[in-house]
Amino acid sequence: MRYSSFIVDGRATWGVVATDGTLVEASATGAAPASVEDHIETMSVDVTDRLRAAAERGGGVDPSTVEWLPPVRRPSKILGVAINNMIGQRLAFRPFANPAFFFKPPSSLVGHGQPVVVHESWGVTHPEPELAVVIGRRAKDVAEADALAHVFGYTIINDVTSPGLKAEDSIELVSPPGTRGGAYGRLLGWRNVRDDDHARSNYLTYHARSKGTDTFGPIGPWIVTADEIPDPNQLGVNSFDGDTAVFVDSTANLMFSVQRVIAHASAYMTLLPGDIVHCGTSMRPAEGGPFRGITDWDIRRVDGRPMRIEIDGIGALANPVVVESDR
Amino acid sequence: MRYSSFIVDGRATWGVVATDGTLVEASATGAAPASVEDHIETMSVDVTDRLRAAAERGGGVDPSTVEWLPPVRRPSKILGVAINNMIGQRLAFRPFANPAFFFKPPSSLVGHGQPVVVHESWGVTHPEPELAVVIGRRAKDVAEADALAHVFGYTIINDVTSPGLKAEDSIELVSPPGTRGGAYGRLLGWRNVRDDDHARSNYLTYHARSKGTDTFGPIGPWIVTADEIPDPNQLGVNSFDGDTAVFVDSTANLMFSVQRVIAHASAYMTLLPGDIVHCGTSMRPAEGGPFRGITDWDIRRVDGRPMRIEIDGIGALANPVVVESDR
Repeated sequence: MRYSSFIVDGRATWGVVATDGTLVEASATGAAPASVEDHIETMSVDVTDRLRAAAERGGGVDPSTVEWLPPVRRPSKILGVAINNMIGQRLAFRPFANPAFFFKPPSSLVGHGQPVVVHESWGVTHPEPELAVVIGRRAKDVAEADALAHVFGYTIINDVTSPGLKAEDSIELVSPPGTRGGAYGRLLGWRNVRDDDHARSNYLTYHARSKGTDTFGPIGPWIVTADEIPDPNQLGVNSFDGDTAVFVDSTANLMFSVQRVIAHASAYMTLLPGDIVHCGTSMRPAEGGPFRGITDWDIRRVDGRPMRIEIDGIGALANPVVVESDR
Repeated sequence: MRYSSFIVDGRATWGVVATDGTLVEASATGAAPASVEDHIETMSVDVTDRLRAAAERGGGVDPSTVEWLPPVRRPSKILGVAINNMIGQRLAFRPFANPAFFFKPPSSLVGHGQPVVVHESWGVTHPEPELAVVIGRRAKDVAEADALAHVFGYTIINDVTSPGLKAEDSIELVSPPGTRGGAYGRLLGWRNVRDDDHARSNYLTYHARSKGTDTFGPIGPWIVTADEIPDPNQLGVNSFDGDTAVFVDSTANLMFSVQRVIAHASAYMTLLPGDIVHCGTSMRPAEGGPFRGITDWDIRRVDGRPMRIEIDGIGALANPVVVESDR
């Protein structure tokens, strides 16, 4: 089944995609939880059965008349995986031994079709087309073999990222003569930290603005339940700048599998129903395409062309870009 | 007024601290919102008046019989400020021009008195004693001069941080000969990135585990409303390892003021009622104390002594430490 949240006739609501392509509101099938996340939390068999029957009947709202919302509007956390792609590891002298995580806040989420707003002064800002897992059951210390049993379903996220803002949020750790400035880098085991050396500076980088600014998290249009995705590690992820294919990739090229990502996260952070875990960017340039790397897709330069991400078995997430002048 | 959330007789509830030192449940005063965050969101004058009257009457629950919960149990986001202390800037060759942010997830929060769990294998893990702002009114693009009008109140957070986990979540960007590995560092404007130089590697660091692991966010015991804190930038922040004073600092030593932090965050991320913004660690070593820097306070080595943080006008947050053997 496909779950979505949307605005129709000025009301924020949620429902399922029917076999005739219409959107059936949950509230039209009888008593229903207030939101997709409330439904995931309670997982009432009765509600699910009614939604399934309604999806078969159809006759709901025309999707072209709704405003799409993030399918889960306020997850307790949104966890991303850094550089989780075989190609991405070319950046690294020593690849990550385990998935490394960052957060996006719920305030960054927008639905399918909603604009991403970027400022010229923020510097290079680019999409990251990714598979997003929606957690169904609380997960703490789960094994890789059990991880997928905790998944409610899958959706598409565009993990918009601004290296320009990231640069401003990087601090240069150095050691003015006579100080202990290199101590933190040594504590982190950085190989090239010397207390007496200005030239060999290092940077500590914080990602909240570069990943978490308002509208930097387009997601949707819907969640496809896990029963319809037999193997989340075999899904094509294709991205388009307007109509031009720019990245052609697959979740098979993730360095750490979906199971591994969930298991590792759950060893440290309790995952709750409705939480989002997105699994790493696709970044294989399309043959003959205009971009060599994902950071070349600077959305300040797309001139009205929407970003579009298609994932096998899920659908397509498309969002226009609005470039604002600086405040 | 002082708002807190707690468990009494097995029930999770919330209320206010009365003048006689007892805890009065909101539900005992008549119809009340389900949680502190719901109260902040609706800000009913009627509910507030009843709570104020109840706080004057007293006769509630003995605080020594409750289990403290985080005052706000599920904020939509928890935003921290990196290295926001005059002393911290000694680490930096070039200080941040603006506050740099990271996130903690709600799943990391625990109440006053609840244990922080750390594993020996996680490496150095230390407290960061901080003032936490609780947002009262939606804030987007607010000016510094207006920022405090968006604050509901203040509490104490211990931003537990593990440089040990941070080291594992740092990736070394280098340039094997013939590759473009230094490109990302150049994109970030890192000064010492050269494509052909192994020795001058740089690191990109992700903070989700090192800041966001379960129990890494002790907070409370209560929120003191903003009317009782005339200037949040003049509050002593004193920290104790057991009974020994280890850091003696003040919010006057933050590099960026509370107003500046809120204003800068709100230029990028919409702050919502109940959101937490914590303002930067205190880190001035107590005279004659055992630690030279905050990272010396390795909680794997405190041998049963609780961490305690006192902030002027708010109170004291104390949490024991549990060191677990590795899985």
